[in-house]
Amino acid sequence: MAVKALGWAARDTSGTLSPFNFSRRATADRDVQVKVLYCGVCHSDLHSVRNEWGNAQYPLVPGHEVVGVVTEVGSNVTKFKPGDEVGIGCLVNSCRKCDQCNNDLENYCTKAIGTYNSVLPDGTLTYGGYSDIIVADEDFIIRWPENLPQNLGAPLLCAGITTYSPLRHFGLDKPGLHVGVVGLGGLGHVAVKFAKAFGTKVTVISTSDGKKKEALENLGADAFLVSREPKELEAAAGTLDGIIDTVSAVHPLPPLLALLKPHGKLIVVGGPEKPLELPVFPLISARRTVAGSMIGGIKETQEMIDFAAKHNILPDVEMISMDYVNTAMERLLKADVKYRFVIDVGKSLKSE
Amino acid sequence: MAVKALGWAARDTSGTLSPFNFSRRATADRDVQVKVLYCGVCHSDLHSVRNEWGNAQYPLVPGHEVVGVVTEVGSNVTKFKPGDEVGIGCLVNSCRKCDQCNNDLENYCTKAIGTYNSVLPDGTLTYGGYSDIIVADEDFIIRWPENLPQNLGAPLLCAGITTYSPLRHFGLDKPGLHVGVVGLGGLGHVAVKFAKAFGTKVTVISTSDGKKKEALENLGADAFLVSREPKELEAAAGTLDGIIDTVSAVHPLPPLLALLKPHGKLIVVGGPEKPLELPVFPLISARRTVAGSMIGGIKETQEMIDFAAKHNILPDVEMISMDYVNTAMERLLKADVKYRFVIDVGKSLKSE
Repeated sequence: MAVKALGWAARDTSGTLSPFNFSRRATADRDVQVKVLYCGVCHSDLHSVRNEWGNAQYPLVPGHEVVGVVTEVGSNVTKFKPGDEVGIGCLVNSCRKCDQCNNDLENYCTKAIGTYNSVLPDGTLTYGGYSDIIVADEDFIIRWPENLPQNLGAPLLCAGITTYSPLRHFGLDKPGLHVGVVGLGGLGHVAVKFAKAFGTKVTVISTSDGKKKEALENLGADAFLVSREPKELEAAAGTLDGIIDTVSAVHPLPPLLALLKPHGKLIVVGGPEKPLELPVFPLISARRTVAGSMIGGIKETQEMIDFAAKHNILPDVEMISMDYVNTAMERLLKADVKYRFVIDVGKSLKSE
Repeated sequence: MAVKALGWAARDTSGTLSPFNFSRRATADRDVQVKVLYCGVCHSDLHSVRNEWGNAQYPLVPGHEVVGVVTEVGSNVTKFKPGDEVGIGCLVNSCRKCDQCNNDLENYCTKAIGTYNSVLPDGTLTYGGYSDIIVADEDFIIRWPENLPQNLGAPLLCAGITTYSPLRHFGLDKPGLHVGVVGLGGLGHVAVKFAKAFGTKVTVISTSDGKKKEALENLGADAFLVSREPKELEAAAGTLDGIIDTVSAVHPLPPLLALLKPHGKLIVVGGPEKPLELPVFPLISARRTVAGSMIGGIKETQEMIDFAAKHNILPDVEMISMDYVNTAMERLLKADVKYRFVIDVGKSLKSE
C-alpha cells in the first residue's frame, strides 16, 4: 500500500519550493524504504526547479544527495535491513540490460531513471530527497560507511562521485601527477580533496583570488591561479596532467588547454548550456583531450563513499533547515555558500 | 663542404613554385645524404606555400613525404649505408632531451625541427623534398621496407602516420570495433586502409555521396554516411567506437559526436584555423572524448611503414612530374585528386 509522504516541491518555473503532500509506493520485493535525514542542495536542483534545462515536470521535488536510515525492506532484499544507514545518489534505476548497465556504468544507460524528475515504468514521476521518506530498488542504494558523518557526507553522492569518477577513469589518480581544478564550488572543492587524497599536486584555477587563501589553507591545494591573469597562466603553461573543469557557465577553453602538458586531459563535468569554442591547434599539437564525465555508476559510487570514509574526505557544508531552502537557492545562484548546503530534513521537515 | 642542390620553391604568398638553386650541408658525422626519388604533395604543403598558417619563411621548398636512396653517410652513421632505400617524413630533428623525445614522441617536442620551413640551430632554413637531395640526422631517417614501392608509399610518411598513430594510441585498432573516417582525401583514404587492416569495421562519413562507390568498392569501407543527411546519421547514432576526423575546414561536431557510442572518441587530425563549436552535453552524457593527434614519432613511423609493407597498404596516388606541381596544387585545393599527388622527383626535376 502506498505510503503518505511529505516533501517540498516546485510547482512552476518560478522554482519556488513549498510543502507538498504526495505518496511513495509500497515497498516492493526488492525495494528499500528510507527515512530521509539529510539532503544536499545540488546546483542541478536549482537548474531543475527553474526548468533551465527545459525538461522539468511539476510538481518537482528535488534532491539527489540523500542520506538516511532504512525503515523497511522488501521480501527479496538481501543487502539491507531496517536501521542501516544508507545513501541514494542521482539514480534510482536503469534498464539493467544494456552494455552500460552490464559494465556498472548505469549512469550512462540511456534509460537510467533519475532520483527526481524522471518517469518510472508505471508512469509515475520520481520525487527526490527533499522529502521525509524515499523508496528505491536495493541495487541503487549505497551502504553508508560507519565512520562517515551522514550530514557532512551527503554531497558526496553527487558532487563526490562527479569528480571522483573522472579522476579515476582518466588516470588522474596517480601520486606525482599535477591536477588542476577549475571552479571552487560544490564540485570543485570536493575535487581538490579527492585529488589530494590520490597523492597528486593540485592547482585551483578560479576567476578571482577571493578563494585563494581558502583553497591553499583550508582545502589543501598546492597552488592557485587566477584565470583572468594572463601572466599567471603563462607561467604555468604546460604544467598540468589533467584538469577537472566544474564550471557550468560558458567559459573560454584556450587558457585551460594551454595549462595542460602534452597528452593532458581537460575533463568537463559542469554543463554549460551553450557550446564552448574549441580551438583545434592546442589539441592536435600536443595530443590533448577534452572529455566529459557525468556522475558514476552505483558500484563506483559505493567505492567512492568507502574511499571518502577511509581518507576522511568530507565536503564543507552549511546546514540549513527545510524552510530555508528558497533562500539557499538564491544564495547558491550567487555562489554564496562554502561549499554546499545540506538540508537537515529529519529535524526540520514538518507537516504543517 | 656544402653540396649544390636544386629544388622548387615558393618565393612569396602567391605560393607559386619555381626552380630554386640552393645548397645542402656537407654530410656530418651522424648525417645521411639522400637522393630524392619521389615526394608526396601534402595539403600542408599548400597551406605553407601560401602562408595560410602565417608562419611561412621564403624561399620555401615544401615536401615531407620524401623517399629515395642513400648516397652518402657520415663517419658515425651506423644504421644506413649508400644504396639503402629510405624515407624522411615531417621531422628532421628535435631537442632529444625533453620528456617527449625520451618517449619516442619527437613529434610533440616543442623544439622539433620540421623537414621544411623550420630553422636549424645554425640559423639556416630547412628545405623539403621537392628537391634533388636532402640531408638529415640518421635518427630521423626511416628504413624503407623491401617490398613497399617507394613511389606509391611516399604519402605514408605523413598521411599514413597521421592516421595510424591515433588509431593505435586511442585504442581504435582492435578487431570488432567500429571506426568512422570523416573526409575521404589524402589522410582519410589511408585511415580507411589502416582501420581495415586492424580488423575494424569502417564507416566513411562524407559531405556528399560522390565517393560512396569508391569508398565501398575500392577502399574496402563497410558503410558510407552522408553527413548532410540527418536521417542517415540518425539511423547510425551511437554506433561508432571512434572517429578519425581528417577535415581541415570548420565543420559541425554535433553530428559526429552523436555517431559515437558512450565513451567513444572523436580524434581530430585536420587543422581548421578557426575554433569549432563544442556542445558539452554530448560529451558529458556519454563520457565522450574529443582529442587531437599530430603525425607520430620516428619509432612509430618506422613501425607504421613496416606494418604497411606487411599488410600491403598503399595510398592511391597520381604520379606527376615536378613541373606539374603548380597545377597539382590548384587541383588539390579543389580536392580533385584520388587521393594524393606524388612527384616523380628523380625523373622530372631538371636543372634548366
